[in-house]
Amino acid sequence: MMIIMSMEATPEQVAFVNQRVIDLGFTPHPITGEERSVIAVVGNNPIELQDQFAILPGVDRIMPISRPYKLASREVQPENTVFPLNGFNIGGEQIVIMAGPCSVESRQQLLETAQAVKEAGGQVLRGGAFKPRSSPYTFQGMGEKGLEILAEARDLYHMPIVTEVIAPDQVELVARYADVLQIGTRNMQNYPLLHAAGESQHPVLLKRGMSSTLDELLMSAEYILSHGNQRVILCERGIRTFETATRNTTDINAIPVLKALTHLPVVLDPSHSTGHWEYVTAVCRAAIAAGADGLIVEVHMHPELALSDGKQSLKPETFAEMVRQVRTIAHAINRE
Amino acid sequence: MMIIMSMEATPEQVAFVNQRVIDLGFTPHPITGEERSVIAVVGNNPIELQDQFAILPGVDRIMPISRPYKLASREVQPENTVFPLNGFNIGGEQIVIMAGPCSVESRQQLLETAQAVKEAGGQVLRGGAFKPRSSPYTFQGMGEKGLEILAEARDLYHMPIVTEVIAPDQVELVARYADVLQIGTRNMQNYPLLHAAGESQHPVLLKRGMSSTLDELLMSAEYILSHGNQRVILCERGIRTFETATRNTTDINAIPVLKALTHLPVVLDPSHSTGHWEYVTAVCRAAIAAGADGLIVEVHMHPELALSDGKQSLKPETFAEMVRQVRTIAHAINRE
Amino acid sequence: MMIIMSMEATPEQVAFVNQRVIDLGFTPHPITGEERSVIAVVGNNPIELQDQFAILPGVDRIMPISRPYKLASREVQPENTVFPLNGFNIGGEQIVIMAGPCSVESRQQLLETAQAVKEAGGQVLRGGAFKPRSSPYTFQGMGEKGLEILAEARDLYHMPIVTEVIAPDQVELVARYADVLQIGTRNMQNYPLLHAAGESQHPVLLKRGMSSTLDELLMSAEYILSHGNQRVILCERGIRTFETATRNTTDINAIPVLKALTHLPVVLDPSHSTGHWEYVTAVCRAAIAAGADGLIVEVHMHPELALSDGKQSLKPETFAEMVRQVRTIAHAINRE
Amino acid sequence: MMIIMSMEATPEQVAFVNQRVIDLGFTPHPITGEERSVIAVVGNNPIELQDQFAILPGVDRIMPISRPYKLASREVQPENTVFPLNGFNIGGEQIVIMAGPCSVESRQQLLETAQAVKEAGGQVLRGGAFKPRSSPYTFQGMGEKGLEILAEARDLYHMPIVTEVIAPDQVELVARYADVLQIGTRNMQNYPLLHAAGESQHPVLLKRGMSSTLDELLMSAEYILSHGNQRVILCERGIRTFETATRNTTDINAIPVLKALTHLPVVLDPSHSTGHWEYVTAVCRAAIAAGADGLIVEVHMHPELALSDGKQSLKPETFAEMVRQVRTIAHAINRE
Repeated sequence: MMIIMSMEATPEQVAFVNQRVIDLGFTPHPITGEERSVIAVVGNNPIELQDQFAILPGVDRIMPISRPYKLASREVQPENTVFPLNGFNIGGEQIVIMAGPCSVESRQQLLETAQAVKEAGGQVLRGGAFKPRSSPYTFQGMGEKGLEILAEARDLYHMPIVTEVIAPDQVELVARYADVLQIGTRNMQNYPLLHAAGESQHPVLLKRGMSSTLDELLMSAEYILSHGNQRVILCERGIRTFETATRNTTDINAIPVLKALTHLPVVLDPSHSTGHWEYVTAVCRAAIAAGADGLIVEVHMHPELALSDGKQSLKPETFAEMVRQVRTIAHAINRE
Repeated sequence: MMIIMSMEATPEQVAFVNQRVIDLGFTPHPITGEERSVIAVVGNNPIELQDQFAILPGVDRIMPISRPYKLASREVQPENTVFPLNGFNIGGEQIVIMAGPCSVESRQQLLETAQAVKEAGGQVLRGGAFKPRSSPYTFQGMGEKGLEILAEARDLYHMPIVTEVIAPDQVELVARYADVLQIGTRNMQNYPLLHAAGESQHPVLLKRGMSSTLDELLMSAEYILSHGNQRVILCERGIRTFETATRNTTDINAIPVLKALTHLPVVLDPSHSTGHWEYVTAVCRAAIAAGADGLIVEVHMHPELALSDGKQSLKPETFAEMVRQVRTIAHAINRE
Repeated sequence: MMIIMSMEATPEQVAFVNQRVIDLGFTPHPITGEERSVIAVVGNNPIELQDQFAILPGVDRIMPISRPYKLASREVQPENTVFPLNGFNIGGEQIVIMAGPCSVESRQQLLETAQAVKEAGGQVLRGGAFKPRSSPYTFQGMGEKGLEILAEARDLYHMPIVTEVIAPDQVELVARYADVLQIGTRNMQNYPLLHAAGESQHPVLLKRGMSSTLDELLMSAEYILSHGNQRVILCERGIRTFETATRNTTDINAIPVLKALTHLPVVLDPSHSTGHWEYVTAVCRAAIAAGADGLIVEVHMHPELALSDGKQSLKPETFAEMVRQVRTIAHAINRE
Repeated sequence: MMIIMSMEATPEQVAFVNQRVIDLGFTPHPITGEERSVIAVVGNNPIELQDQFAILPGVDRIMPISRPYKLASREVQPENTVFPLNGFNIGGEQIVIMAGPCSVESRQQLLETAQAVKEAGGQVLRGGAFKPRSSPYTFQGMGEKGLEILAEARDLYHMPIVTEVIAPDQVELVARYADVLQIGTRNMQNYPLLHAAGESQHPVLLKRGMSSTLDELLMSAEYILSHGNQRVILCERGIRTFETATRNTTDINAIPVLKALTHLPVVLDPSHSTGHWEYVTAVCRAAIAAGADGLIVEVHMHPELALSDGKQSLKPETFAEMVRQVRTIAHAINRE
């Protein structure tokens, strides 16, 4: 960290801070400028320490140097994390397309959608059994019954399942049915849940919090990685901004930035990041063009009857057309 | 809701939408303007329904009319919710001051701070035993041992305890020790936790999510209220914006807006909303002047040694001075 | 507009509002719901009127129905605006690439860059002569001398020029040299400047304000269009959000949303929207894949010596590679 | 500045950067950590230089140390800037209240309002003659005629006038009538206007841009100060965030932060920062409690007939009551 002294700091204050760095076992590098002094502190200094120095007399502010995540960092692991899922490689040359309804609403609905997704070229089936809904008065998901239906669809169509888990004590149950555990945007900083998902050793799809920085997303990934669970997929799903024309703002920058900062696979969820099906295909093309490793898209047989997120779901034929367009983009940038 | 047809919608599309409203058991009120048609739908129409209409051909967009929360609304309950806590009334004429360290770090630290808070005029003791920290490598709290220390402080100084609970299966444990359950900013939309807190029938301090709208805060309160638990305190703790001079942006508008929209008590946390102790006292004065029912403030005997949030903690003497100033402001607006 | 009455509004208040609508010459459509009344007002009602109703007793809030822009709207003009620039069509099938340095720094620098841009396949040369800089102590541009150099480059390389104008009384001067007037992000709501640009009848590249909604961008375009100047190009250049990993957040949603709402051409500026040259090429690909009509990109022969924006400028060889990649994407979606 | 090398930087890259610092005439202080090297560069290094280093091979990122403003900084001038206006001191112990209509609409309207403001205890009269409106179809102000009416009101009621100027070539005209030039939120980074206002040597009320950081606000003040014009009043008027319950978010933190960073007077505009008259009084109390030097408030005799901003204007009696409440708060914190 850098300890920036204020312009009015006295030499005694600078000396006191310097001594304190030494007392705590670190090596200070004091630098005397024309305007002010700066003390560089070398070594791994936790954020608590930074806060403790921030309030010493004569200190203007602290600047951290190290990034707070290690295991997730490409500086630590330069090569991409690639792992197989049902014979398919996530994070490699192939583009993965995960699709399905927002919620599992019935056996028939899910099986029909699974078939449509499969036929259109999707590789992973998504569908929510436990739904975090902002209103207590709306459909909250089918629960374990929904998981059973998902498992049936997997067996029928040979597609791995990704589904959301919303509480730490549910992880075991959901992991029994699902191939990939989804941690949703509202739970990106639900640390007990991150712990439980880390311990499960199941692949995890970790969605960015709707107002989380990319550094915070990587810190949450670090929670999972620090339990020895290497199979984490990061998901950009739009962030909250002042713009109201769309449900969220798709942060397309996040794709190249994450690919630079981390070795983990990165996918994009255009359904939530736009909130309107009419914009989904364009944003899917953009995501792949920007270098995303895949997509997770909402598909519904009859969006006008959906129990949740109908407005942002693609119909099967629109989904199939999107897959075709995305494939062309993928070839244009030499991916499959 | 209002169904706004697009300017190019055909008469057939308008008729189709109108008929569908009828088919679903609602009453449509079609209005034909110069530019476009609008169909008003009277009655309680859930958000799913709105999404379903949003995608019908010829529909431009949907505008909801009803607010999605009921029990939390001042339209439904005009008089303030006031409830006693240790002989003190929350939500009434009195201003409540909750204070204490970010984390319980040791028995000595907590007891000393509790005494200082009591002497300076604080009414409720805060302190975290389970800490949601963004890094897996930082201090995560003392756990149940911390709760025991908090309970000891309560008995010694006759101050009720507010402490954070971060997982649904912890609620019972924390409720055994704490007088008020705190639900933190990262958990405002942790619905299993809101359910569990609702069922506990314990008073709940619900912090606004760092990027949650006031409507979303009230929806989360609705989750708790819908379990018959009436004792919910709302807490503004700063929101995330582009401004980086402070840790968060204190949304002071939230105080009068919440007091207008809901009957629930509203307090402000200036420690997190500013992130720097130098700004805390000014924002405390502002909160009370704006009509807040209380404050929750971080106090530490030795901020330069704190294991978390030292930068934003007041020392006991600064805290005591803040209480004096706030008392003057309270009298100026005829509160205690 | 819709006048939403509050739940406690009395019948007298509803009647009063209704009568006032009539008195002002509009037709009210009162709708009585279970919870509250709503009065729909048909016809073009300006925003002042909405504000005036908003404060009448018993009124909860006002919801506008009409969009505030007309000439810019695709509802009013369904077909794309396409116009020629130096034999090249903007807004049609062709993708336009505008490139050049942030600032004109010297004759040699500009001519070299112009040649490099031309050879790599760029169609329009950009370069700033008048620079809006946030610090009074930094390089403010070469002024008219810069315009002369730009004109020389145009004649030498047969490329039209786009350059920024920052004050209304400069429009005439800049229009004498430039083919396209650029209105920068800080001036999107500089109405005297929009007026002057509208009256000039010169093509205008209008950049989105860094915290402007798309509706506000279209309102600013409306200012120019309302002077009979039809040749307006909209430019997404990133918006300001909480994310600090990049200089701005590229709102890729803006591309399909603007293409749906308006008939005007839409281009993207990845240099400002990312702030770092390493991310520029990925975002260029994304923009074209999302349906943008072109790009405006910063190119510098020696970014490490640039007097402004060096960090986000492409070197000529990186620019040429970007153009190649973008061309492949364009073909993949059947554009040139 | 601090040049943070990446973890993989080679010793040659570190040496190259170090040499370049020397070549440019600065003194490098290289620090070798366990993870990475950092090179501290002492002295005033402009932002261009930082950008130039940012892109050298092996450099991870640059961290500036110095604040970019000097004249506006309290580090440079510790004592408050206080200046008289019509016998009243701005920036001292006294609280200044500026009030009046959003727009001058007629002679009668303005004179009546001026009288009401005067009688209620306001010290400065506000009113817009040139209005920056987001729609070209709404009332744009009375222009010079409005200035004449303002001047008449000043003479009649002995109140100085603050009014907005929106173009550099208007400054001379407006300065002929007005006592304080207002630069509005959309023009905070209109540099030609800042230059002209600086040269005029007239007091300036500078409003924060709706998405400007406090550092950017101070940089814009620096533009004016750098022309030798010392009389600048800063105005917080709400920032743009995701919250839609209010027109803007009042950043109350800005008050104590600005008082710490700068010696310039700071006032708050609660009319724009809330957008609704019902919240104005509470936010006025909060602003004064937080340490603001004054308020600028919209007052209208008949808000329901206002040609602009009626929703957020106080009626004279509400304004008078607000002044009474604010006076009580001011006394409570020992101000007048």
